[in-house]
Amino acid sequence: MSSMEEVDLKQANILAAGANKKSVRIVNGLGSMMGSKSMVNVDFEKDSNMDYLLERDQQEKMKYSNRKHISEQPWTLNNWHKHINWLNMILTVVIPSIGWYFSLSGKVPLKLGTAVFAVFYYALGGASITAGYHRLWAHRSYSARWPLRLFFAIFGSASVEGSIKWWGHSHRIHHRYTDTTRDPYDARQGLWFSHMGWMLLKPNPKYRARADIEDLANDWIVRFQHRHYILMMAFTAFVLPTLACGYLFNDYLGGFIYAGIIKVFCIQQATFCINSLAHYLGDQPFDDKRTPRDNWITALVTFGEGYHNFHHEFPTDYRNAIKWYQYDPTKMIIYCCSLVGLSYDLKKFSQNAIQQALVQQQQKKLDKQRTKLNWGPPLTDLPVWDKQEYLNQCEGRKGLVVISGIVHDVSGYLTEHPGGETLLKAALGKDATKAFNGGVYRHSNAAHNVLATMRVAVVKEGEQQAIRFAARRGEVYSAKKAQ
Amino acid sequence: MSSMEEVDLKQANILAAGANKKSVRIVNGLGSMMGSKSMVNVDFEKDSNMDYLLERDQQEKMKYSNRKHISEQPWTLNNWHKHINWLNMILTVVIPSIGWYFSLSGKVPLKLGTAVFAVFYYALGGASITAGYHRLWAHRSYSARWPLRLFFAIFGSASVEGSIKWWGHSHRIHHRYTDTTRDPYDARQGLWFSHMGWMLLKPNPKYRARADIEDLANDWIVRFQHRHYILMMAFTAFVLPTLACGYLFNDYLGGFIYAGIIKVFCIQQATFCINSLAHYLGDQPFDDKRTPRDNWITALVTFGEGYHNFHHEFPTDYRNAIKWYQYDPTKMIIYCCSLVGLSYDLKKFSQNAIQQALVQQQQKKLDKQRTKLNWGPPLTDLPVWDKQEYLNQCEGRKGLVVISGIVHDVSGYLTEHPGGETLLKAALGKDATKAFNGGVYRHSNAAHNVLATMRVAVVKEGEQQAIRFAARRGEVYSAKKAQ
Ligand code: HEM
Ligand code: HEM
Ligand SMILES: [Fe+2]
Ligand SMILES: [Fe+2]
Ligand SMILES: [Fe+2]
Ligand SMILES: [Fe+2]
Repeated sequence: MSSMEEVDLKQANILAAGANKKSVRIVNGLGSMMGSKSMVNVDFEKDSNMDYLLERDQQEKMKYSNRKHISEQPWTLNNWHKHINWLNMILTVVIPSIGWYFSLSGKVPLKLGTAVFAVFYYALGGASITAGYHRLWAHRSYSARWPLRLFFAIFGSASVEGSIKWWGHSHRIHHRYTDTTRDPYDARQGLWFSHMGWMLLKPNPKYRARADIEDLANDWIVRFQHRHYILMMAFTAFVLPTLACGYLFNDYLGGFIYAGIIKVFCIQQATFCINSLAHYLGDQPFDDKRTPRDNWITALVTFGEGYHNFHHEFPTDYRNAIKWYQYDPTKMIIYCCSLVGLSYDLKKFSQNAIQQALVQQQQKKLDKQRTKLNWGPPLTDLPVWDKQEYLNQCEGRKGLVVISGIVHDVSGYLTEHPGGETLLKAALGKDATKAFNGGVYRHSNAAHNVLATMRVAVVKEGEQQAIRFAARRGEVYSAKKAQ
Repeated sequence: MSSMEEVDLKQANILAAGANKKSVRIVNGLGSMMGSKSMVNVDFEKDSNMDYLLERDQQEKMKYSNRKHISEQPWTLNNWHKHINWLNMILTVVIPSIGWYFSLSGKVPLKLGTAVFAVFYYALGGASITAGYHRLWAHRSYSARWPLRLFFAIFGSASVEGSIKWWGHSHRIHHRYTDTTRDPYDARQGLWFSHMGWMLLKPNPKYRARADIEDLANDWIVRFQHRHYILMMAFTAFVLPTLACGYLFNDYLGGFIYAGIIKVFCIQQATFCINSLAHYLGDQPFDDKRTPRDNWITALVTFGEGYHNFHHEFPTDYRNAIKWYQYDPTKMIIYCCSLVGLSYDLKKFSQNAIQQALVQQQQKKLDKQRTKLNWGPPLTDLPVWDKQEYLNQCEGRKGLVVISGIVHDVSGYLTEHPGGETLLKAALGKDATKAFNGGVYRHSNAAHNVLATMRVAVVKEGEQQAIRFAARRGEVYSAKKAQ
């Protein structure tokens, strides 16, 4: 187009990766814990830019040009330990296993007070992830004042899911690249992969992706949490519940095991379910092009994040559930915070856009059902008889009736006819158009459908009438035959 | 059409009214009890034919040519009693009132044995109406051997709903003329009219209709029951339960009141509900052109007849409910009888035809929803700009973006964009077709819908592209604008 410029795709992709601007230096290897760091590396140096990144990517490419990355090598007795991301293994498998060992062996009995505290603390940590990490920071679906942000940053750490910065970055990549190799939790690779596998194994750097998180880097709370993540995590996840249960119920060990380790395990598993189950189990009322699904079971354990089909379609809506009977307490928390001014600018997609998605998806399902049914042969597939031919055919063949320019063979339907055999018999060999269309009885849609399955020919002199008749039923007449 | 004969409508209607053949003489005034006899007169003389009927209709017409029929006269203190069909009033209102009086006043206490018998006997009478009167005789949805037919004829009488012959005749008229003045229980005249009003008032002979019931007249059991209806009814409805409860529980009076009168009242009311509630309350999954509705409440009290939307669409299907979780014991009775050979030739509409109705009705609802939503202006309503015009407009107006040959004003969407403000801003004044369609991000249906609402113009040089783009969304481009 003359001087109408196209959007420069490379430039736009650099923007989308957030690689255009000088990034604030936040380097902290362990802050990207659980981060499959080599896959989504958010910690590039100050003054870094896309060129720098490309250069680094290039270096890595070179490195693996003559040998395969570990993720591309088969598992052997010699290299199996290299496949594994041991940090994540420790945080999500080893530590929880120790917790469960002490719990199940009965070595640390569960006291009622500790149990109640653990559930309460689970809710604090969980809601900080859903309302804070996810809907606030990853999706900017609303804005929040600093006290609320600080609260989410502190208690979000207690869930041991990495820093806000790392989490938000991975999550944005997940939304942008859903169901592709660049999707960190690519659901197409199976339930186990999307649940924990992606995190326990070292990923292939070939599929590295980046997202713009400038807004996160500009938030001092996010920066603070990322820098001091290890400390904050250790304290809020394990130390604080230990001290609290010790002080309140004189149950230090119980606090550590139940309100600490087991609670972390539960929150982690619930969150992992959003990447696995919520892409696997449930309905797709808004779009079935990709894997996300609505599912009240996952919603139940994740404070409402289970309406994942809605969420992927309308990611910046502060709600995940829109029906009153759906369980989305996170939405309620955000809404209540807005009443006291802690949150504001709550974003919603228009009801119009939501309804449109529902309508389109239902249409898709309906179209699919429709193709499975027998709607009778299209007019263009039928032979064309002139009237004489019809009369000749009637000689040899009983059961022919013309209705609206189409010849039908009703011989198999005589005893089935709800209006009786007599009437149908009296119409054989004749034109029953008027009788069928109200002269005797105004037949239902169902009758029209049954009729269409009995078509055998079009009457030449009645072809236009036949086309109009079929069109009223929604049939499109392709002009092929009409010449 | 040359020598292709049309069905003679008058002749066909005579056939449909069953007035062509010599009718067996069955005259019994009280056999058509509850029959609004003057409306649906099935008792014409032997050797009668349509001419005879037409003559009688003519006579009646003459009779009311200079004076109005009572149903057309206003109610006054002098004529109110003439409006009322006293026989029906006695059978459905007066007798039940007496029963309730004795029951509610405590004069006749309800014994457990009698209560159990009443419920059991209710089921006998009710099932005889639904499986016998309705699905067997009125609809011929299956065939039955004489022992079963006799059983239905005997216990059907106990429900005090008239003879099979009269009942079947009215019912066929109801199906053929649903929601018209000829429909005896015309639902358009309100809940009360279709419930009992039609039967308690004298109907207008102007709207008399007839149906072919030759098959009923040919059944000796139907003839026998019609002839001896009064006796059979009195015995089965009142005498038998009185004797039974007297003999079994020494509760003659309780048997008469509860297993007799109250039971009859309950069955009558349940049946009336099919004419009233089942045309008023519930869903219309198969067709909403007429009033019948699916409703599990009416199904519950009528042994499954409440799936009335299905039933009117597929009247000769021996089932009323097709889903496993729907309550249709009548269907089960008929099916079980077929296992022991008492019934046979059970008719079903094809699953194909049933699915088609569901699909078409859902399509109708969807189309209705669709018209309520904002899909953005159609291309033909937009001004056409050439590229220069677009660039000129961009000077004065921020927020214009071209995508697929269509100019959009996204100024109100910048902060809403889930992909971020930066990216969208970078596309202003440019052609973002590729970026929007996968170059940066492959946008969802939802995004396409939001986009369409922001249309402001079509780019002249991109008109074909715009048409293709819109067509992929299902928009039909009317060639109006294209000249
Ligand atoms: C040959 C194709 C025909 C088919 C497939 C057909 C099908 C049906 C169906 C499915 C019904 C049930 C009610 C409804 O769904 O509308 C029905 C009822 C009826 N049909 Fe037909 N019909 C045919 C021809 C005719 C003709 C030629 C006549 C008259 C001359 C006729 C007269 C009636 C009448 C009077 C009823 C009403 C029965 C009642 O509801 O009690 N039909 N027909
Ligand atoms: C002007 C009209 C535009 C509208 C109405 C729009 C709408 C949307 C919507 C609704 C989403 C959420 C995901 C989805 O539903 O697909 C989205 C995501 C996105 N958009 Fe746009 N968009 C527009 C233009 C653009 C342009 C021009 C670009 C790039 C240059 C872009 C880049 C993105 C990206 C990268 C995402 C992914 C965000 C994520 O999932 O994290 N959009 N857009
Ligand atoms: Fe997801
Ligand atoms: Fe998300
Ligand atoms: Fe009905
Ligand atoms: Fe019926």
